[in-house]
Amino acid sequence: MQTSKLAEGLKGSEIIKIAGEVNALKAQGETIYNQTIGDFDASIFPIPQELKEEIVSAYNNNHTNYPAANGMEVLRESVSEYLSKSLGLDYSKNEILISGGARPLIYAVYQTILDVDDTVLYPVPSWNNDAYTYLARNKAVIVETKPEHKFMPTVEDLKPHIQEVNLIALCSPLNPTGTTFDKQTLTEISKLVVTENQRRLEENIKPLYVLYDQIYWQLTYGHTKHYNPVELVSEMRDYTIFIDGMSKAFAATGVRVGWAFGPTHVINKMKAMLSHIGAWSPKAEQMATASYLRQTNAVTSYLEHIKSELDFRLNRFYDEFQLLKSKGFPVDAIEPEAALYLTVQFDLIGKKTSEGNTLTTIQEVTSYLLQEAKLAIVPFYAFGTSQTSNWFRLSVGTSKKEDIDTIFELLKKALANLS
Amino acid sequence: MQTSKLAEGLKGSEIIKIAGEVNALKAQGETIYNQTIGDFDASIFPIPQELKEEIVSAYNNNHTNYPAANGMEVLRESVSEYLSKSLGLDYSKNEILISGGARPLIYAVYQTILDVDDTVLYPVPSWNNDAYTYLARNKAVIVETKPEHKFMPTVEDLKPHIQEVNLIALCSPLNPTGTTFDKQTLTEISKLVVTENQRRLEENIKPLYVLYDQIYWQLTYGHTKHYNPVELVSEMRDYTIFIDGMSKAFAATGVRVGWAFGPTHVINKMKAMLSHIGAWSPKAEQMATASYLRQTNAVTSYLEHIKSELDFRLNRFYDEFQLLKSKGFPVDAIEPEAALYLTVQFDLIGKKTSEGNTLTTIQEVTSYLLQEAKLAIVPFYAFGTSQTSNWFRLSVGTSKKEDIDTIFELLKKALANLS
Repeated sequence: MQTSKLAEGLKGSEIIKIAGEVNALKAQGETIYNQTIGDFDASIFPIPQELKEEIVSAYNNNHTNYPAANGMEVLRESVSEYLSKSLGLDYSKNEILISGGARPLIYAVYQTILDVDDTVLYPVPSWNNDAYTYLARNKAVIVETKPEHKFMPTVEDLKPHIQEVNLIALCSPLNPTGTTFDKQTLTEISKLVVTENQRRLEENIKPLYVLYDQIYWQLTYGHTKHYNPVELVSEMRDYTIFIDGMSKAFAATGVRVGWAFGPTHVINKMKAMLSHIGAWSPKAEQMATASYLRQTNAVTSYLEHIKSELDFRLNRFYDEFQLLKSKGFPVDAIEPEAALYLTVQFDLIGKKTSEGNTLTTIQEVTSYLLQEAKLAIVPFYAFGTSQTSNWFRLSVGTSKKEDIDTIFELLKKALANLS
Repeated sequence: MQTSKLAEGLKGSEIIKIAGEVNALKAQGETIYNQTIGDFDASIFPIPQELKEEIVSAYNNNHTNYPAANGMEVLRESVSEYLSKSLGLDYSKNEILISGGARPLIYAVYQTILDVDDTVLYPVPSWNNDAYTYLARNKAVIVETKPEHKFMPTVEDLKPHIQEVNLIALCSPLNPTGTTFDKQTLTEISKLVVTENQRRLEENIKPLYVLYDQIYWQLTYGHTKHYNPVELVSEMRDYTIFIDGMSKAFAATGVRVGWAFGPTHVINKMKAMLSHIGAWSPKAEQMATASYLRQTNAVTSYLEHIKSELDFRLNRFYDEFQLLKSKGFPVDAIEPEAALYLTVQFDLIGKKTSEGNTLTTIQEVTSYLLQEAKLAIVPFYAFGTSQTSNWFRLSVGTSKKEDIDTIFELLKKALANLS
């Protein structure tokens, strides 16, 4: 053992393992349709031009030294206004914490809320809660959600565990599924948390908090509406820590501007923790985001554009999966609601390839799709489900519209070659 | 208790407390000479123009999506070349890890090397090792250094503890003192660590690592030369994790580009840890730094400029302190060698103010200097020394040359008013 037990025990990312296989094929000259990444191809989805111009202007104004530890005041004010205007949420600049993207904030929530050996509840599939739980040395109650609930947790899923957990990590729109909480489900869950906290208050027990990751909330399609616990049950304001930021809705994953907001005492402790970790957002990008979020027309028009582009791709993929299904192929997909993700199913375990090999594991199915259909997608076990789940995340952030027909030609052929 | 014990136990920064007092005086319309901050006034010390242009160009080339988890390959290659060219150190791109500044890397070293209840040795005064030790839940052996050694630790300081510690955190040039390791001292310490590791290897015990923070190494003045453990004792390559980056030498604290380099197995674990913490450097700034570091003439000329500006200020302050001392005032200063810092002494405990109050604590001395001389500096206890140390850090990164005469007029008057 050369390093700490914590470091030695870190699991490698399943997504990165698949990326390795993708890169090996690419190195052999293959064209791969890589829909694994929760990110954008910046040549298809550049950040807003006005944001870029504001960053240049901030650099020209020498915004190059340390930002404030909790983020630049102008940015926290601008985020406060943006939340009020767009979500009707009332958070002051001192209830908002800026960081270099959403991840440091999620890490800080775990470290700030949870004592070693406390218990976190999270549904699966979900993104990276296993790693945050591991890094905070916590126990976990893991709830496996169901396709008939669009892979979102229900109040019945949470109820049996509510008295024994210290944090519930929720995400809507959900990475990896691209689905969202409906109003009733989130209301029921919120009421359950409030009731449990009344008990804890009476018994003088540490409250139960909810980490509410809404980083994709601006990317909803069709009739889908984003909800949050605080607007539905106002008492949730004391117990909800929101995770939000520029990364996804503005295709700005490399720009590193995220924010959390929630109860002041939690935000202040997260600030103290992150000031030592130093995961600050670059100052020029903070100043630029402050100005950009106030350019309402630019923001509206960018969001309209990116949403229509993502929605088009998600629906094209969804329709093609439904077409394959209608032709009897063992595939399915869940209607896209939000984010960059389509939830798709490949029921191929037990099928035989033309070489006579039987697909016996999801890893083999993933590899078969990659090798034969040149399609790279991420199986849900990479998001914490059991290894037997035959559902996958298909991300469209790097998808070229003109490739979609080819992808389905290849996929149809690969599926037809199975028996 | 509303949050985790870890979060509740975080101590507030002493520097931030002083900043509060400074801001209160400023709000009353006072002019304060604030030499507390380990940062630059960007209007006096902007980042290199060429770096700024490269950032703009990277944004125009849409470098806006996720960077690689360990940093952009071109930047790691460029850093590798830079280390080779400027320090004669041979580290490949895979032995280098990029992060959003130096802090996340220091945090990651602690978390990666140290098990809970392992012991870290660090000298004081030094920057923030107490917080990193606390956050990694470690024990500490704290060695208080002496003014006659320029506040640098010696091999005699470390030797008694060498068998019981798992990490030694060293920094040279040292924040807060602006002093450096001489060749002999660092060689002796390096040999001690190598010998100890031979014992550990034979006894199959986890190695003793050295965190070597050299973020200020390019800012040395006069005859001062920066040394590192690996160039002095080559076996130290297996045990040294370097912390380095753009923040200080290029006045780029808000640009968020830092790097660590060291043994591959440690760097890989730090990468895994930081990919979950998400403390990434923004992509455009990474691409820009990669290009900038290869512009040898631009780099050389910027460093010449910033060094001469800092050196001038440090020496002006130093000379003025020597002048006060020669006139019998109870002050002293250590000859500046590097970084942005001058180590100054105010031997004022027991002195009586003109109002008849006796200064009994260093906090009262700090306040007196701030209230009467309008000079804000940081006492060494904020860097972990005992509360009785009467030494202070004076930072010149925000200092205007034309203010220095005024500062010493005010200071002389304030000192003369004591009896």
